[in-house]
Amino acid sequence: MRLPDFKVEQWMTQYEGQARYNLTDTCVQAVPFHQLADVHEMKDIVLDYGCITGDEETKTLIAQLYTKGSIQQITTAHGCLEANELVMMTLLEKGDHVITVVPGYQQFVDIPKSIGCDVTLVQTEEANQWKPDMRTLCSLIRQETKMVILNNPCNPTGALLEEEDLKELIALCETKGVYLFCDEVYRDPRIQPSVSDLCSMGISTGSLSKSFGLAGLRYGWVKGPEHVIDQINIRRDYAMVSTGPVADFLARKALEQKEELLQRGQDLIAQNKKTLEQWCQNNPLFHVCLPQAGTVCFLGYDFEYPSTQLALDLMQEGIFFVPGDCFDTPGYLRMGLGQDAQQTKVGLERLSQWVQAHIG
Amino acid sequence: MRLPDFKVEQWMTQYEGQARYNLTDTCVQAVPFHQLADVHEMKDIVLDYGCITGDEETKTLIAQLYTKGSIQQITTAHGCLEANELVMMTLLEKGDHVITVVPGYQQFVDIPKSIGCDVTLVQTEEANQWKPDMRTLCSLIRQETKMVILNNPCNPTGALLEEEDLKELIALCETKGVYLFCDEVYRDPRIQPSVSDLCSMGISTGSLSKSFGLAGLRYGWVKGPEHVIDQINIRRDYAMVSTGPVADFLARKALEQKEELLQRGQDLIAQNKKTLEQWCQNNPLFHVCLPQAGTVCFLGYDFEYPSTQLALDLMQEGIFFVPGDCFDTPGYLRMGLGQDAQQTKVGLERLSQWVQAHIG
Repeated sequence: MRLPDFKVEQWMTQYEGQARYNLTDTCVQAVPFHQLADVHEMKDIVLDYGCITGDEETKTLIAQLYTKGSIQQITTAHGCLEANELVMMTLLEKGDHVITVVPGYQQFVDIPKSIGCDVTLVQTEEANQWKPDMRTLCSLIRQETKMVILNNPCNPTGALLEEEDLKELIALCETKGVYLFCDEVYRDPRIQPSVSDLCSMGISTGSLSKSFGLAGLRYGWVKGPEHVIDQINIRRDYAMVSTGPVADFLARKALEQKEELLQRGQDLIAQNKKTLEQWCQNNPLFHVCLPQAGTVCFLGYDFEYPSTQLALDLMQEGIFFVPGDCFDTPGYLRMGLGQDAQQTKVGLERLSQWVQAHIG
Repeated sequence: MRLPDFKVEQWMTQYEGQARYNLTDTCVQAVPFHQLADVHEMKDIVLDYGCITGDEETKTLIAQLYTKGSIQQITTAHGCLEANELVMMTLLEKGDHVITVVPGYQQFVDIPKSIGCDVTLVQTEEANQWKPDMRTLCSLIRQETKMVILNNPCNPTGALLEEEDLKELIALCETKGVYLFCDEVYRDPRIQPSVSDLCSMGISTGSLSKSFGLAGLRYGWVKGPEHVIDQINIRRDYAMVSTGPVADFLARKALEQKEELLQRGQDLIAQNKKTLEQWCQNNPLFHVCLPQAGTVCFLGYDFEYPSTQLALDLMQEGIFFVPGDCFDTPGYLRMGLGQDAQQTKVGLERLSQWVQAHIG
């Protein structure tokens, strides 16, 4: 089951090591180990498989990121990406119809395609704050539609769908028995709602990688209807067994400090958003729809320059962006807002200088 | 892409917690954390994704488990199970022909079937030391054959295929361009050869879970031809991103102590094998082909009793076995040889007592 290159991931893998100013990372700046846990507490962990369907204490803390649902509605995975893969591989079959939004995360297009699904793409535009037109989206649901896939807040655009935006879609998914699967890895659970709380057909995934700044734990989860979780747990036996006691323990530590970790991220993002807003005012060749939530946005530019070439040329100066081309959207750079504030500021200044020197 | 219940894994998940005498675990007794690593060394790990295709130092140590090959021929995964899934999901397509051996590990039958492959099973028998007849196996290779899947040493039978046994198959796979994929999770790399060293079409998987007693790290790998690893790395971007810096670090620690960890396991297995051999002499209703390698064997019994019922009834006494039924092989219990020696001894004594009381 061959898959095409995952463009954004390959770009990150290939060039991230050369970045002096990482202006594109989707994670909040990574936490060092000693800030997360007292290493002494780990000494007595027995390194067996641990609880196969995820440590119950950890799942109890995950459940508290939602307004509804029991730990029977949660299963764990090695990051949100694996959680997403488990959802799609478990529920989708050849011939199913799937609807998703672009520009978006390539996994939601190419995993369904590799299974043999018919994938309909809903295009979004900056002029509409990168939100899909919900009436159009709803009108695409038909007899064979098995799943609508969203990413909320969205990578790369930063678009946020509020409860009000989702209302009609939720009702329709419930009536028609269509899964509403939403990757909520960029969600701040203190503020934004989850489709798994709002919709009886809702399946949400999340992780500690983005808003928590703990990608190194490779810890994610799925929350959904219990019968869906039961099915996913069958596939988990073929795909991963367990998340293991080390990751379960460290995830528990992170979730016990969720308030501090999430606030740390939000403070960084708020600072960088302000920097970017001011920078855009002084750099009229650029435009951006500042995100209401999440860690990323899509920085547009009004000059003729292929985005891949632009990103490569900026890379020569150590200024690291993922080009819009990786999301099939020329004229944009994917910008991350969760990295070090000073680095972001200086990186944007270097970008100004480069533009003045090369574009005018 | 629904999968059937993974019988052995579900049995383990459901009943392992009730075991007083775990006579069936496939892992060497788990190592406690403090025996593996000095926790202080972890303090400064930055919890980002780490090296996406696996930490190079760790991969260098993995490469030393083989006689040939560079780190470009290795990629990492969360355990051998995920490594296996990556290999099959990457290389197999609907319509491909696959050959594997039973009784064996259900993943090698049902993942290919879920993709739409035509799977031919080669039956093995205790009378032939559970080894497949290699002439028969070779004769089954045809135009559409994409892959031969082995598990060496084999779970549940403990069968070991030596270099000599594999010679004809290796030559044929090379001539016909058939992948020879071998799960070597039970291999002792100090003693047994790897198909990835012996065959240009060979792909091996391994992990730290079984012989090393470190299932809790969820750390495995694939070693194969570089073009195969490159393809697997494409799928990894859709399935897991990275193993992460915590697991990479702990795996490095384990591999730095491979001699001690592997010897610890082999000593336990040798002791338990001796116990079992003596026990069988005193319990003529049972028979076993003692394994030359690996951590498991298939304990046969000569009385009428459905194996699932037998395992359930023994469970009432805290004696934990996986029934042969989980491997579609009635009349057997899957026995693990890597657990605590005293527990194994007492567990077998309890089994004798139960048999005397219930069978006579």
